[in-house]
Amino acid sequence: MNPAQKKRLVIIGGGFGGLSVARYVDKSLYEVILVDRNNYHSFPPLFYQVASSGLEPASISFPLRREMRGRRYRGVSFHFGEVVAVDVAACTVRTKFETIPYDILVLAAGTTNNFFGIPGLEKRVFTLKSTPEAIRCRNEVLERLERASLCRNDRLRRRMLTFVVVGGGPTGVEIAGALGEMKRFVLKREYPSINPEEMKVILVEGSERLLGAMSAKSGADALEALGQLMVDVRLGWRMERYSDHVLTFADGTSVETETVIWTAGITGVPLPVVGTGVKPDRAGRWKVDAFNRVEGIDDVYAIGDIAFQEADGYPRGLPQVAPVAMQQARELARNLGRDSGRRKPFKYRDKGSMATIGRNRAVVDIGRFHLRGRLAWLVWMCVHLVSLLGMRNRTVVFINWMWGYFTFSSGLRLLMRPDRYPLRSYWDE
Amino acid sequence: MNPAQKKRLVIIGGGFGGLSVARYVDKSLYEVILVDRNNYHSFPPLFYQVASSGLEPASISFPLRREMRGRRYRGVSFHFGEVVAVDVAACTVRTKFETIPYDILVLAAGTTNNFFGIPGLEKRVFTLKSTPEAIRCRNEVLERLERASLCRNDRLRRRMLTFVVVGGGPTGVEIAGALGEMKRFVLKREYPSINPEEMKVILVEGSERLLGAMSAKSGADALEALGQLMVDVRLGWRMERYSDHVLTFADGTSVETETVIWTAGITGVPLPVVGTGVKPDRAGRWKVDAFNRVEGIDDVYAIGDIAFQEADGYPRGLPQVAPVAMQQARELARNLGRDSGRRKPFKYRDKGSMATIGRNRAVVDIGRFHLRGRLAWLVWMCVHLVSLLGMRNRTVVFINWMWGYFTFSSGLRLLMRPDRYPLRSYWDE
Repeated sequence: MNPAQKKRLVIIGGGFGGLSVARYVDKSLYEVILVDRNNYHSFPPLFYQVASSGLEPASISFPLRREMRGRRYRGVSFHFGEVVAVDVAACTVRTKFETIPYDILVLAAGTTNNFFGIPGLEKRVFTLKSTPEAIRCRNEVLERLERASLCRNDRLRRRMLTFVVVGGGPTGVEIAGALGEMKRFVLKREYPSINPEEMKVILVEGSERLLGAMSAKSGADALEALGQLMVDVRLGWRMERYSDHVLTFADGTSVETETVIWTAGITGVPLPVVGTGVKPDRAGRWKVDAFNRVEGIDDVYAIGDIAFQEADGYPRGLPQVAPVAMQQARELARNLGRDSGRRKPFKYRDKGSMATIGRNRAVVDIGRFHLRGRLAWLVWMCVHLVSLLGMRNRTVVFINWMWGYFTFSSGLRLLMRPDRYPLRSYWDE
Repeated sequence: MNPAQKKRLVIIGGGFGGLSVARYVDKSLYEVILVDRNNYHSFPPLFYQVASSGLEPASISFPLRREMRGRRYRGVSFHFGEVVAVDVAACTVRTKFETIPYDILVLAAGTTNNFFGIPGLEKRVFTLKSTPEAIRCRNEVLERLERASLCRNDRLRRRMLTFVVVGGGPTGVEIAGALGEMKRFVLKREYPSINPEEMKVILVEGSERLLGAMSAKSGADALEALGQLMVDVRLGWRMERYSDHVLTFADGTSVETETVIWTAGITGVPLPVVGTGVKPDRAGRWKVDAFNRVEGIDDVYAIGDIAFQEADGYPRGLPQVAPVAMQQARELARNLGRDSGRRKPFKYRDKGSMATIGRNRAVVDIGRFHLRGRLAWLVWMCVHLVSLLGMRNRTVVFINWMWGYFTFSSGLRLLMRPDRYPLRSYWDE
C-alpha cells in the first residue's frame, strides 16, 4: 500500500493498553504515533515496592524509545508531550510541543488519584499512582523514621511513627503490609534508637472487608496476614478530614499522624476534549461500546482504565486492571485491521487476580480457585517478573527480591530528594 | 573502660573520609556520631554515569544505616540532618533537628560547586556534585533530545542539540565522552527523527590541556579519544557569561545552547562555623597541620576535600580526591587512639589516578607508568567496582556495564521528573 494512503493512528498513553495497540495493530495500514507525557512505560503493580524501598524506580520503568526499537513496533513513532487539548471536531491532538492530526484516536491515558474534592487533601497526603509519587512517598516515610530516631518529645515522635493508609484495595493492602514489615523486621536492625512498639501502621477501609474486588477468602486471608504484621486494620471506618496532622474519622475519633498514604480513589486522567458535548462519567471514564468506540465521538476509541465498558457479569463496568487493558488493546488492534462489518465485539477473559502482603505471602484468585501463603507469593512473583518489560529489569528485580528475601535488608532505603531547581528548566521561567 | 568516660567524636559527612574515620577509630575510646544531610553514602566518581543514563541512582548510593549494621561500626550512630551551626566555643554541632555536643569534631563534608560568583549561573547550568544533581542533568539532556525530535525550527533544534561542558577535569572529560557516545551510537537507534550531525558536544577548558592533574600523556590521549567521539574540545577557551541561551566566550564569540554542564569549579561545603575567627581559604578549605588538626581551633579536625594540607611535592595542597580522604581518615582514626605525643604525621601515598572516556577507553597514571585504551578501561572498571559499597550495588553496576557494553543500549534513559510537591512535606509549609 502506498504510505500516503495509510491512515494515521494516534494513541494517547504508553501504558499496558496503549503499548499493546501500537504493537499489534497492522502497520501496513496505519502510521502510528504514540504520545506520552513520560518517555517511559511504568509498571503500576509495583509502585508500592518503590515506596517501601524494595525496588529502585528504574527497575519498574522502561524507556518507550527502547521498546520501540523492536521489530514489532516498526512504523510506530514516539512523541513526548503532555496533551493539552484533544479537538475531536478538527481531529487533532495538541501537546505542549506540537499539534498532531489524526484519523483514528485511541485514548489510553489511564487513571490518576481521586481525592473526591476533599479540600487540601492532595497536598497533604502521599499517593502511589506514578513512579515520582512513589519516590516521594519513600522519601517521606524514611524522613519520618530519621526524625523520630532523633526526637525526644513523646507525642511528636508517636505522630511521626504513625502511618495511615487509606483504602483497602490491593495497593492499600500491599503498602500497609510493606510498612508492617518495616515495623517488624527493619526498625530493630537499622533504627536502633526507635522502639518498634511505637511505630503504628493503620489501614482504613470504608467497607466491611479488604480486597473488595477479590474473593471473600482472599479478603479474610489478607486481614489475617496484616494482623500478623501488626497492622491495625479498621474495616467500616471512614476518613472524614485530615489537617494539622490530625486525621478525623466519621465517628469523630481521630489519630495524630504526619503520613497519610491515600489509595482510596482513582479517576480517569482528565483529558481536555473539545469539539463535542460528550463527557466522561463521574469516575473520569469514557463510555465505550463493545468495540471500544467512545459513544458519540467518531473515530475515537478508549481502552483500559479510562474506558467504561459494560459487560455480562460486570454491571458496573469491567474492572480497571491491566489484563482488561491489554486484552482490549489486542482486540482493538485486530479490529482496526478488519472491515467495519467484520469486527468482533470485545469479550473479557478473567484470568484471575492477586495481591501480596509482605515478603512471602500473597492471595491469588483464579476463577473459584484460591491460593494463599508462600505458594501464592511464588505465583505472584513469577507473574510480575514475566510482565515486566525488558530482560535487564527482570534480572535486577529478581536479584533485589532474592536479596531481600534471604537477607531482609535493602540497599534502597534512600532518602533522595530532588535537586533544588527540579521542576522546570530555566528556559521555562 | 566505663562508657561515661568515653569521649564523643562527632563526624560531619558520610563520604569516603567520614565513613572511614567512623570505621577505623577505636570505639572503646569514643562514642561516635556520624552526621549527614543525606541518609546515604554517595559515589561521586560515577555521578556522570547517572547523568548520562548509564547507571541508576540507587546503584551508586548506599544507605548509611545499612553500612552501620556492620561489625566494624558497632558504637557508631547515624544522625540525619543538615548542619546549621558549628559552635567551636561551646563545642556543639547544631542541625535542623538537634544540638549535639562534641569532644572531638571531624569536618568531612566534602565539596560542592563553585560558580565563582557569576550571577545567575547556578540556576542556568547543570552540575554533577550530587546524585540529585546528576538525575536532574539526565532529565534535562533527555528532555532536549525529545524536544529536538519534534522541533521543526532549525535554529531552535540546533540550540537544543548543543551541549556545552565547561571544565576539562575528569568529570568534564567523562561527561563529554558519554554525550559523545550518545551522538555517535544512541541517536540513530533511539531518536530516528534526529540527524546525529546536528548534535554538538563542546568541551571548554581554560588551560591548554585536558586532565591537568594527570600526566601530559593522559591529557593527550583523552583529547584524541574525545575527538573520535566527535566532541569539539576547545582548549584555552574561557567562558565569559551565559544567559538567554547564549554562552559567550572571553574572545567575544558565542554559541547558542540550552544545556551547559558546569564542572569547572569546586569549593568546600560551606559550614556555618561560629565561636572562632578562623575561616576557610578562598576555595572553602580548612587549613590543617600534618595531623589534620584545623589550625587555630582546638579539637577540630578536617579531612578530605574540605581540608587544605600542604605536603612535599604538593605546594598547592594535597589533591581533592577520594584516596587522600580515605588515607587521611585512616591515619586520623589511628592517631585519635594514640597519646598525643605518639601521633604520626600524615603521609600521602599516591596510588595513581584515572579517567574514562566513553565505553571502553580510559587513561591511567600510576607513578610514571601510563596506560590507555581498553586495558586502562578494564583497570578503571575493576577499581570502581571494588570501591563501591555493597555487593548488591557491585552486582547491579556490573550487570549494567556488561549489558551496555555488549548491547549499547540502556534501559535507564528515563526522563523522570519529581512529583509536584517534592521539595518539602506539607508540615514544613
